[in-house]
Amino acid sequence: MAQTTPNHTQTVAGWAAHDSSGKLTPYIFKRRQNGVNDVTIKILYCGICHTDLHHVKNDWGITMYPIVPGHEITGIITKVGSNVKNFKVGDRAGVGCLAASCMKCEHCKDSQENYCEQVQFIYNGIFWDGSITYGGYSETLVADYRYVVHVPDSLPMDAAAPLLCAGITVFTPLKDNNLMGAQSQGKKIGIVGLGGLGHVAIKFCKAFGHHVTVISTSPLKEKEAKELLGADEFILSTKPEQMQAGKRTLDFILDTVSAKHSLGPFLELLKVNGTLQMVGAPDKPLELPAFPMIFGKRCVKSSMIGGMKETQEMMEVCGNLNVTCNIELVKPDQINEAMDRLARNDVRYRFVIDFSDGQQEFSKQALKDQ
Amino acid sequence: MAQTTPNHTQTVAGWAAHDSSGKLTPYIFKRRQNGVNDVTIKILYCGICHTDLHHVKNDWGITMYPIVPGHEITGIITKVGSNVKNFKVGDRAGVGCLAASCMKCEHCKDSQENYCEQVQFIYNGIFWDGSITYGGYSETLVADYRYVVHVPDSLPMDAAAPLLCAGITVFTPLKDNNLMGAQSQGKKIGIVGLGGLGHVAIKFCKAFGHHVTVISTSPLKEKEAKELLGADEFILSTKPEQMQAGKRTLDFILDTVSAKHSLGPFLELLKVNGTLQMVGAPDKPLELPAFPMIFGKRCVKSSMIGGMKETQEMMEVCGNLNVTCNIELVKPDQINEAMDRLARNDVRYRFVIDFSDGQQEFSKQALKDQ
Repeated sequence: MAQTTPNHTQTVAGWAAHDSSGKLTPYIFKRRQNGVNDVTIKILYCGICHTDLHHVKNDWGITMYPIVPGHEITGIITKVGSNVKNFKVGDRAGVGCLAASCMKCEHCKDSQENYCEQVQFIYNGIFWDGSITYGGYSETLVADYRYVVHVPDSLPMDAAAPLLCAGITVFTPLKDNNLMGAQSQGKKIGIVGLGGLGHVAIKFCKAFGHHVTVISTSPLKEKEAKELLGADEFILSTKPEQMQAGKRTLDFILDTVSAKHSLGPFLELLKVNGTLQMVGAPDKPLELPAFPMIFGKRCVKSSMIGGMKETQEMMEVCGNLNVTCNIELVKPDQINEAMDRLARNDVRYRFVIDFSDGQQEFSKQALKDQ
Repeated sequence: MAQTTPNHTQTVAGWAAHDSSGKLTPYIFKRRQNGVNDVTIKILYCGICHTDLHHVKNDWGITMYPIVPGHEITGIITKVGSNVKNFKVGDRAGVGCLAASCMKCEHCKDSQENYCEQVQFIYNGIFWDGSITYGGYSETLVADYRYVVHVPDSLPMDAAAPLLCAGITVFTPLKDNNLMGAQSQGKKIGIVGLGGLGHVAIKFCKAFGHHVTVISTSPLKEKEAKELLGADEFILSTKPEQMQAGKRTLDFILDTVSAKHSLGPFLELLKVNGTLQMVGAPDKPLELPAFPMIFGKRCVKSSMIGGMKETQEMMEVCGNLNVTCNIELVKPDQINEAMDRLARNDVRYRFVIDFSDGQQEFSKQALKDQ
């Protein structure tokens, strides 16, 4: 589809999955020429999000193959369109999940583009010109400037990449629940799940001055949660006596788990009027028992990434407070291995693909394999 | 237990269930003498709540037999203790679910006694003196004045009785979500389920100036919802095209259904950032699918009745705005029949037991049966 759109004349090398095996192979495709509202970005780094894994395997039944995943993108701007404001060639840029939205509805006007009914994502979406979008597992990206953010100079480009999805996903709930700022320090916050989302959530919470309890099924994670990431307490959720002791102690819980689970045991940990916000996306319904909700006047919220204004705000907060992700860099030819390890949760805490060097070799190899 | 507590010397006639058959029979028992903080109430009316049905049948496994149910009580004060403030003999009084709480914790201090960890209910609870509490299916009640409210003169005592549980259960969510008052009129509110809770929720919403959509599985309820209760719209939840047409249209949903169900289809009816508050108490976990939560930044809340201050406030609001319940009066000897019909949802919309006359006959009969 993309190849037949008239102005899609830029040849780009990337990595695509072609079927539900999810195996990624080098792939040459076309991107649109840089339009008046576009910037072209030489991609340096792209994080591997669990959503990428779901998409390449068509877990949600919505994948359009071939699919080029990747929505945690950092790079350098190489071209700017004539209407582009605030960006110039050479700028450090970040691109997350969003590629397009209607720009007219109340959500777009409020910079909550992520909730626009016509929102299109940076891969496996349909852009305004009818082309299928291809993501950041590639050497170059063309993006409308309204869905691009600046990366502060103080942030390393590799460890900043996962902020564009993992970071904003956990930042928004903290901001929305008034857990950021001088007036709101010292809350007791629980983080359920210690993976890509959870580890950066701990960092935000500590940077914002809160007391953090990690709640996990894995006893191995206690040491790293406390010593490496700065968590204050650890509850092993498989131990009833630990869960019992934690009842009615937390102001807020961020539930980052993507597997199906019951919210009941976590709700019991909340104080009266407490909120649990879930940001994972289990494909099967969660269990929500009524009694811990009713007896504690509790609240379950959810959200999906964040709007463009708050994404830029998050990048600046990260720059100011030195919040970055703990990453493991992989070369493009290690993508499949990284995906396999991610499926086993064998990563501390985010894989980031390094497109910053060997790009030419990669491109040549891709062209040869084509 | 109650009978052995030293100062429990008042003989009272009531109706009790003695086992999980749930069959209620006349029952003579003792209540405490009126203490310094107590009022004694000659009960005139007591509503039959679905919770009573759960308790007499021990559905939740917590019933202490014999059980005298009833927590929607109106009557006339016949005695007042020396410490009692604000009540005098002859006052019209209402008693709901609460019998005692610690009066020291943050919730008690904030008049959210219903969330006190030591809260005790008006029946099947343990009072401060160690006695089991017996509820309103009886001729007389002794209650601590701090858990008693005034019934405004403008309210009929029979149709006001169910306000003490059904009324406050739906009033609190509307108040807490800023849906009451001149600044918040004209919201689009959905009411799921049209029973004891749902019908009074419609009345509150209309009295507060909102647009009300009833969502029900029963096509027979459309006419009564609109013509009798004043609902503006009706969605038959079994019709996919009606549910589809209602997507993203509602600001707030009050879910009054007590049977297990999925929240997903109702969440889809909410606008972005909308809230569904559930006030039913299904004994099995509800299904909470992640996607309608995430993609709509939606929120699920819950609550249980209300505190004493807001219960009094609700009674006054009802008095001012003429909000009462639609009831079917039954005599005490019709309790079992009414319970059976309630189990089949065959009531429009609340049974209320009439203890206002024939009390002496009832008492004599009870004594004879003892």
